Amino acid sequence: MDKVVLAYSGGLDTSVAIKWIPEKYGMEVIALTVDLGSEHDLESIREKALTIGAAKAIVVDGKQMFVDHFVFPALKAGAIYEGAYPLATALGRPLISYLLVKTARAEGAKAVAHGSTGKGNDQVRFDVSVAALAPDLKVIAPVREWAAEMTRDKEIEYAQQHGIPVPVTAETPFSIDVNLWGRSCEAGVLEDPWTEPPEEAYGWTVPPTQAPDEPAYVTIEFDRGIPVALDGERLDGVTLITRLNDLAGQHGVGRIDHLENRLVGIKSREVYEAPAAVTLHAAHQALEKMTLSKDQMRTKAWVAQQIADIIYNGLWFSANHQDLRAYVESTQRYVTGKVRVKLLKGNCTVVGVDSPHSLYQKHLATYDTGDQFDHTAALGFIKLWGLPLQTQARVQMLPQGEEPLSLPSVKADG
Amino acid sequence: MDKVVLAYSGGLDTSVAIKWIPEKYGMEVIALTVDLGSEHDLESIREKALTIGAAKAIVVDGKQMFVDHFVFPALKAGAIYEGAYPLATALGRPLISYLLVKTARAEGAKAVAHGSTGKGNDQVRFDVSVAALAPDLKVIAPVREWAAEMTRDKEIEYAQQHGIPVPVTAETPFSIDVNLWGRSCEAGVLEDPWTEPPEEAYGWTVPPTQAPDEPAYVTIEFDRGIPVALDGERLDGVTLITRLNDLAGQHGVGRIDHLENRLVGIKSREVYEAPAAVTLHAAHQALEKMTLSKDQMRTKAWVAQQIADIIYNGLWFSANHQDLRAYVESTQRYVTGKVRVKLLKGNCTVVGVDSPHSLYQKHLATYDTGDQFDHTAALGFIKLWGLPLQTQARVQMLPQGEEPLSLPSVKADG
Amino acid sequence: MDKVVLAYSGGLDTSVAIKWIPEKYGMEVIALTVDLGSEHDLESIREKALTIGAAKAIVVDGKQMFVDHFVFPALKAGAIYEGAYPLATALGRPLISYLLVKTARAEGAKAVAHGSTGKGNDQVRFDVSVAALAPDLKVIAPVREWAAEMTRDKEIEYAQQHGIPVPVTAETPFSIDVNLWGRSCEAGVLEDPWTEPPEEAYGWTVPPTQAPDEPAYVTIEFDRGIPVALDGERLDGVTLITRLNDLAGQHGVGRIDHLENRLVGIKSREVYEAPAAVTLHAAHQALEKMTLSKDQMRTKAWVAQQIADIIYNGLWFSANHQDLRAYVESTQRYVTGKVRVKLLKGNCTVVGVDSPHSLYQKHLATYDTGDQFDHTAALGFIKLWGLPLQTQARVQMLPQGEEPLSLPSVKADG
Amino acid sequence: MDKVVLAYSGGLDTSVAIKWIPEKYGMEVIALTVDLGSEHDLESIREKALTIGAAKAIVVDGKQMFVDHFVFPALKAGAIYEGAYPLATALGRPLISYLLVKTARAEGAKAVAHGSTGKGNDQVRFDVSVAALAPDLKVIAPVREWAAEMTRDKEIEYAQQHGIPVPVTAETPFSIDVNLWGRSCEAGVLEDPWTEPPEEAYGWTVPPTQAPDEPAYVTIEFDRGIPVALDGERLDGVTLITRLNDLAGQHGVGRIDHLENRLVGIKSREVYEAPAAVTLHAAHQALEKMTLSKDQMRTKAWVAQQIADIIYNGLWFSANHQDLRAYVESTQRYVTGKVRVKLLKGNCTVVGVDSPHSLYQKHLATYDTGDQFDHTAALGFIKLWGLPLQTQARVQMLPQGEEPLSLPSVKADG
Repeated sequence: MDKVVLAYSGGLDTSVAIKWIPEKYGMEVIALTVDLGSEHDLESIREKALTIGAAKAIVVDGKQMFVDHFVFPALKAGAIYEGAYPLATALGRPLISYLLVKTARAEGAKAVAHGSTGKGNDQVRFDVSVAALAPDLKVIAPVREWAAEMTRDKEIEYAQQHGIPVPVTAETPFSIDVNLWGRSCEAGVLEDPWTEPPEEAYGWTVPPTQAPDEPAYVTIEFDRGIPVALDGERLDGVTLITRLNDLAGQHGVGRIDHLENRLVGIKSREVYEAPAAVTLHAAHQALEKMTLSKDQMRTKAWVAQQIADIIYNGLWFSANHQDLRAYVESTQRYVTGKVRVKLLKGNCTVVGVDSPHSLYQKHLATYDTGDQFDHTAALGFIKLWGLPLQTQARVQMLPQGEEPLSLPSVKADG
Repeated sequence: MDKVVLAYSGGLDTSVAIKWIPEKYGMEVIALTVDLGSEHDLESIREKALTIGAAKAIVVDGKQMFVDHFVFPALKAGAIYEGAYPLATALGRPLISYLLVKTARAEGAKAVAHGSTGKGNDQVRFDVSVAALAPDLKVIAPVREWAAEMTRDKEIEYAQQHGIPVPVTAETPFSIDVNLWGRSCEAGVLEDPWTEPPEEAYGWTVPPTQAPDEPAYVTIEFDRGIPVALDGERLDGVTLITRLNDLAGQHGVGRIDHLENRLVGIKSREVYEAPAAVTLHAAHQALEKMTLSKDQMRTKAWVAQQIADIIYNGLWFSANHQDLRAYVESTQRYVTGKVRVKLLKGNCTVVGVDSPHSLYQKHLATYDTGDQFDHTAALGFIKLWGLPLQTQARVQMLPQGEEPLSLPSVKADG
Repeated sequence: MDKVVLAYSGGLDTSVAIKWIPEKYGMEVIALTVDLGSEHDLESIREKALTIGAAKAIVVDGKQMFVDHFVFPALKAGAIYEGAYPLATALGRPLISYLLVKTARAEGAKAVAHGSTGKGNDQVRFDVSVAALAPDLKVIAPVREWAAEMTRDKEIEYAQQHGIPVPVTAETPFSIDVNLWGRSCEAGVLEDPWTEPPEEAYGWTVPPTQAPDEPAYVTIEFDRGIPVALDGERLDGVTLITRLNDLAGQHGVGRIDHLENRLVGIKSREVYEAPAAVTLHAAHQALEKMTLSKDQMRTKAWVAQQIADIIYNGLWFSANHQDLRAYVESTQRYVTGKVRVKLLKGNCTVVGVDSPHSLYQKHLATYDTGDQFDHTAALGFIKLWGLPLQTQARVQMLPQGEEPLSLPSVKADG
Repeated sequence: MDKVVLAYSGGLDTSVAIKWIPEKYGMEVIALTVDLGSEHDLESIREKALTIGAAKAIVVDGKQMFVDHFVFPALKAGAIYEGAYPLATALGRPLISYLLVKTARAEGAKAVAHGSTGKGNDQVRFDVSVAALAPDLKVIAPVREWAAEMTRDKEIEYAQQHGIPVPVTAETPFSIDVNLWGRSCEAGVLEDPWTEPPEEAYGWTVPPTQAPDEPAYVTIEFDRGIPVALDGERLDGVTLITRLNDLAGQHGVGRIDHLENRLVGIKSREVYEAPAAVTLHAAHQALEKMTLSKDQMRTKAWVAQQIADIIYNGLWFSANHQDLRAYVESTQRYVTGKVRVKLLKGNCTVVGVDSPHSLYQKHLATYDTGDQFDHTAALGFIKLWGLPLQTQARVQMLPQGEEPLSLPSVKADG
């Protein structure tokens, strides 16, 4: 009997899949649960898989791999999807895919399986990541296959018939996904973009109105783009992120309400919470403003958008991404220093930046004594800077009486 | 005697210039004061110019021209410099240049003059704008010329000798510029980027800690990208911005602390306040997320960066800008609708968006009944979407044993 | 009986479709043949459609629409796919789609049909264009449906059974498509990228070795980006392109051998001939070098790539394209003038450019007497231009002993 | 007496500088002549420097450094300025600057000097490169200083007075610069862009009309982006380029006539010859089309433009360049294989490409038997690909009666 490794979350869909896949495909299911900081009781999930009928159930702590190989590279890249979403779920999928493939190889499985629907981005991230890492492995996506045939009611009926535990409590009206880097929430009343997200949509952050009246200050140290300490205490990445999620969340920081373009051609309203991600991106950007040149910042802003799209669109394991990461690594050589952040009632404000490699040079910037900027240089600079524009005006626009950018004609008064 | 039209602010530098230019250049000075919402007493400025010795003194109310021809086009473009600065001063300079030229033509002047130093961006904006609008006009910049010869002390001495009023009160330690679209503050203790800006640096906004505990909500209506009403009341642009500056400022919204790349090759720390600009950009972006396609958003994000740099760098009157504005105009055809914004203790949060042209389609996005999205399409989509990446992995990376993006090798377990 | 409008070329596939669609879909077929300069006998194609069984057969001369609304806009945009392909077929598809929709509306048809396969780009261009112009119309693609079931042999058998004429002569080994703007050729031996295309692959051009030993010169006049005259003779677009195809083709100009990325995720080897397109793009670019500023050229180069991809990828009727076209139109205001081109044995060389709006200013460029360039300006310009780089070297690289770009260390000798 | 290291070409300007610098600056001149393949008699240049009065004269063979550290990196990057100029001179300047600095360090000099004028790009490249490598070194540019004071006639007079040899023969009317990677020619009749460059402007290539009637074929092998062999013979870079310059030049390949945007704000007409560069770039691009994915090609095309501008604009030693080079290096991992090029009467045509890492997969591309492409996938792909455009048409354009891209309205016939 062929084997399939199933990414198992413990929820209803993948629980049903443990039964359904053997029926449909005649394969033996190995349940793989990857801990990316999802806050579930992993041992009971493992036991549930076996109870339902998995041939084997494995739990892997992926938190450190997640931070080292996915989260921090994305932070260094400045990868924020459409200027809003720090990509928590999108970063988790390639790692789970990688561990599915790794487990499939170790177990001699012929296929892997995941619980994504046919409408979201996650199916793409799983399918494409597996295709890149192991083009020979079959990918099974039961929920996508059920689209036509198995409604929610039928699924529950199927579960009851097969002795699969069905959650008795009224389910949340939202669809939620959680890992260390963020929490996402969609569906329910959020599907109306005119409606303000209700407090029930949030799970990690207090409402800004209920946050403390006094700000918290935290100093974050970076070493070549990677956060390594909080308030002088060196911390591993997992701990650092966990603490910041807690601290910033208490101050109402990290709520993101986003009308988002999915890869599959539709817009979707998503509510995210990412206290650590929001704080770290803000701090990292502030440090880059100090340590990257103007040209580097413009190039990197463009690259950041490319990488955010790459990650969102399931193309983590592409050569294009690999090339752009080489670029990003090079930019981070001098992104070392400390950033002081103020957390207050939903605001995350950078209030101090310092770096041994600062390109801000007070002796050039100051209006005070000590100014070493050469003021005589400006005249020549401006002359050549404006020369093309002056030539163009002289030769093209003014002779044609063209009015500059919809202003009333200058020459009428001439 | 040749005439020169001087952009006159009423401050010490341009007051001294009224005396100094005739001495140095033998020209008659016409003082032009343009009101862009700077909150000064314009009539007394006009009188001061005449008292000091201007041959003529003119005050022009430029507020509506400023909003219609500079501020709202920049808003539609999404022009925010380096992701932070809404470009208030930068947008005012080309309009003042335009009015200098217009006045020079009307008065038969041979030159125009401005009070910018040799180290900032404003000199570039004035010089280049005038070069584009009237390549034959000479531009005189007294403060830039003084760089070597006239220190602050000498300037005051010169003023006293010539009967030019010198402010008796201790000056603010900051250098400040104000118009309708924002207030900028630099120099003094702000020159140390590790120091949090003191409250004295701010003039338009209350500190978030002292803002009301309860949020204010405001609904902004847009018509093809232009804000036209607040809470259902149609307002002209000047009034709308003035009200929003007031309202959002009361809630601590609009403070921006920015380490900025100047055109002249240095980094500089700037503190801005722009309550209306911050609120309107946030609302406009939210409406664009709803009414522009994914592809349009990506193209426009790139254009927005180009336009922000163009405006910042003094190239408002360039053909390149004109072309990009034609692009922006086209994008705004359906950016019509209303946006509900919540103002709370420094936070400006969009909490509702609605448009008759919304590309968000609940029947495609919903996870509820009524879903009309074709789930069967995804499989084919993903197959072709991932095909290039799969081919590349199969042909290039996997045969070479290349490890995907620094993860431990997959195949070791294979 | 519902009606379907079929894009009918007269070839075997669409001839079979005239019979097959009624069988399969129970619809009445209206054959629409659009003349984009394909050099076929259109009247006999029309008769063939009726003979086979079309309920109606329509021929439309689309050449002028093609040139005015598709070819010249693409020329003004500088749209060349992957730096090689002037997009002849890709430009024709949206026009045929438009005429299919127009005819469907006029005839009250419920569907349109086309003969594209399931592997190429054309199916996307047809399907997506129709979806944009008439989202309610069904699109039928018989050849794509046949993929599994109907092999070439079965198709011929089906044709013979149904009295559909099958070409008796040995078919060309290549798959060929032709319109005014170019000829494409693929398949057969071309599928081996190590093989030089044989002469039989070409139909419009003489081999450079057999072209005349003496060059031909032609002067092309442009009016705001549109070619309007050859050697002083004003010509309509269709005639101008036809003449240039003939003239440049006689000199071996316009052969393009391209390994191309298709939208559907594969690479494909294509051989194109486009004598007029190659000549006109070269001339247009040369005129733009003279009449656009440096900044405009960089912006437009980026836009040109976006538009080329948009056209290739079937997104002609997108809002994104519409916005970018507004940009392009603005850029062409001063692209007026004449360009002298030399055609010689496969070479198309611009040897002279002239424009009343030329930004090339001899008095600024000359090394001769008459130089009006201000040489003293350069020093100040360079000082500020190089300042960021100097600061970065001083602060970051040199103190770290970083060697600039893999050169042997400078300081070792210091 | 302080020392200055002068980049000495042996021409009149730098010969005069050997005398003039000590007079003006009281410094001792060390003449440094760098051989980048300029075809001059270097020993006699060295002797001339000493004769005129240099304290020391050094000749350095920089050809291999030039190829390894400047030319091949630019080739891998695809760096071609404004789509035309392979950057020969622009690539040589940072190396000469580097060697000036290296020599200055070795000799304990306080300054370096170069012979560039105040109007070209080269002054920027020298000044900025030195500022980056050795911010403390003074840069002297005698010809730029002479701008006002020393005309050509005065310079010759000065030379004669100081015993500096003045070329007796009538000078070429052109200004020429040569290194291994190309030859540039400007000024004289070339300053009229309507004039075809006369044959005297060319020095390395035969006119296409006089090239052999029969083509030459050459097969170029690349190893990770670097050309390593011609027709199976492994060659060092200098020899390979030299041979290709010779071979391609004999076939009239490599002539470039370019109206170019200089950094200093003017347009300039330049005639280049670069037989090897043109051939190698064509071959390298063809190999990249085979070995890079569609996404990689688009990203790299953008990077290539950035790098070309960086090199042209004198920013070789910038951190921005360093970052982008890291990107380029990553892209070249699989750019290995061979390219067959046909040289014929000015044409350089790629006629065959082969790579062990080819992403062109015949089993996916073929229309013949053996097709493994999944034709059924296309339908789902197109559905989602076109969905955003369909939604936008349905919601925005069609309801407003908007006509798609200036075509006559579809619905009029509906």
